[in-house]
Amino acid sequence: MPNPTAAFLVIGDEILSGRTREANIQVLATALTGAGIDLTEIRVIRDGLDPIVAAVNELRATYDQVFTSGGIGPTHDDVTADSVAAAFGVSIDIRDDARERLERLVAQRGIPMADGILRMARIPDGAVLIGNRVSGAPGFSIANVHVMAGVPGIFKVMVEDLVPTLRGGAPTVSGSVVVERGEAYFAEALAEFARAYDDLSIGSYPMQNEGKFVVEIVVRGTDPARVQEAVAKLGDVLRE
Amino acid sequence: MPNPTAAFLVIGDEILSGRTREANIQVLATALTGAGIDLTEIRVIRDGLDPIVAAVNELRATYDQVFTSGGIGPTHDDVTADSVAAAFGVSIDIRDDARERLERLVAQRGIPMADGILRMARIPDGAVLIGNRVSGAPGFSIANVHVMAGVPGIFKVMVEDLVPTLRGGAPTVSGSVVVERGEAYFAEALAEFARAYDDLSIGSYPMQNEGKFVVEIVVRGTDPARVQEAVAKLGDVLRE
Repeated sequence: MPNPTAAFLVIGDEILSGRTREANIQVLATALTGAGIDLTEIRVIRDGLDPIVAAVNELRATYDQVFTSGGIGPTHDDVTADSVAAAFGVSIDIRDDARERLERLVAQRGIPMADGILRMARIPDGAVLIGNRVSGAPGFSIANVHVMAGVPGIFKVMVEDLVPTLRGGAPTVSGSVVVERGEAYFAEALAEFARAYDDLSIGSYPMQNEGKFVVEIVVRGTDPARVQEAVAKLGDVLRE
Repeated sequence: MPNPTAAFLVIGDEILSGRTREANIQVLATALTGAGIDLTEIRVIRDGLDPIVAAVNELRATYDQVFTSGGIGPTHDDVTADSVAAAFGVSIDIRDDARERLERLVAQRGIPMADGILRMARIPDGAVLIGNRVSGAPGFSIANVHVMAGVPGIFKVMVEDLVPTLRGGAPTVSGSVVVERGEAYFAEALAEFARAYDDLSIGSYPMQNEGKFVVEIVVRGTDPARVQEAVAKLGDVLRE
């Protein structure tokens, strides 16, 4: 059975404007790779009802799992929960289980309750809550769509709670070799090697390392012994 | 006239696997914001012909400009140039102008020519080259699609060369105020304020700063005086 597939939908005016650097992609990607869920697409879109509804409906029909980040706070620009409810055609209102979590948080911290806090207890009908041990305000899963906070410290704990509950597949393992030779000089030999190991994914990634151009050759697959074997043989391929 | 819109297509197995942290989004987003081009969507997809063709064709029909990063090197996993040619239904071959740039580079560096270097001179028919003063291998623009390298140091110089040549609009300027108060306590007042300044975009972004939760209220717009005025008045809205 092939691994389940996934998409990540980042709701992020601040990333699109360049003001904020995206910080959640790597956390989710790493967790999914370890769980054997193939992250196949990431989209960053505006904080608006129409773009969120369109993207959620397209992605949930295409992939086994869809994760979202951002837009579930209490302010006027937090429209993710309403948009996801609209995408599924279900109602959304303050729900008792979510309100209780927020009331507990407020009592623990000795802070006053506010309408804005209750707004974070608005959950689409039929959704299951995702825990948030950092700030209390829950995320939620509805069918295959998992709606999480954008603040990196909260996103991370939600991913840690959620991903182990999803059906996974064979985790992808990887190994790599770094060379200081230009890619062009081993491209043909590497292509031949990749054909011989066509059960593995072999990528060549040029990068600058302390000003010097180096290339990292990465081997990925689900059989650790096979990945290890390929990495061990790469040296011969990359040698001048 | 509204600002032109844009999408950024990141061709990135390594970002989807979590091995590499995406590093080009903020560079492009900042350059486009300054040029008055509205970056509206970002997608990260696999290094494969089918996903690239589908995404390029969808995005170029939807947005005024499409930028891509990654997959234009000499190795077997670099399939972007071929995919873009396929998306446009044009042929691709080694082109004299691109080959000359690479021959000049090889001569300057005193390194041997190789088939792999010539592979980087393969340019879709009808494209215009994008300069690369770092490593010589050019990117290219075909119609409204701009194909650039994924290595951050090269991507950056390509963006610097390309973006000033595109038709821009009114640059978006922004200002912000950081408060240590919970969003929930000023959410209603802020919503009212946003309605009064509905020609501006007003976002509220909770974040952790040295372990403390703070909120940055960001005001964006194309009229600097109007943005400044709103930022100055925000203090009253956010006060306890």
